[in-house]
Amino acid sequence: MYVIVVYDTAAKRNPKVLKLCRKYLHHIQRSVFEGRLSEAQLVKFRHEMASLIDHGYDHVTIYTFPPGTAPQRVLLGTGPGEPETIL
Amino acid sequence: MYVIVVYDTAAKRNPKVLKLCRKYLHHIQRSVFEGRLSEAQLVKFRHEMASLIDHGYDHVTIYTFPPGTAPQRVLLGTGPGEPETIL
Repeated sequence: MYVIVVYDTAAKRNPKVLKLCRKYLHHIQRSVFEGRLSEAQLVKFRHEMASLIDHGYDHVTIYTFPPGTAPQRVLLGTGPGEPETIL
Repeated sequence: MYVIVVYDTAAKRNPKVLKLCRKYLHHIQRSVFEGRLSEAQLVKFRHEMASLIDHGYDHVTIYTFPPGTAPQRVLLGTGPGEPETIL
């Protein structure tokens, strides 16, 4: 299934969240990742993310789509690249 | 059609971007909005957003879905609320 992940996490947790997302998905925009995951991969990803974040502060939204469907995407702006990679 | 908007914009532009998104969509997470728009509304929204942002720095992703389809959504974490409203 197609998956979009958007995260708003505290700066100190960003590197780990970014690393986890890169393990499973493609980096679209600073806090946005997309890609295809199996049901098992999605369960694993969710479990790993849930153990990484502070549930009282951080916020992660995971969108999933029925097999065979995927959104159209329009990007406005080029964005500043990936500041997180400057560690 | 169903629309998801995710923005990564400079802090000084956030209030205007937030205000524009609220005019058309529902606030899901700090930088994430969703909702149903007509084709005409989407064109207008895109035009207004494009005139607001700095295309060399800011980044806005607009996802659209064919009529009758919408993603499933899972939220992890409660998030800190909406810091942007504290202006």
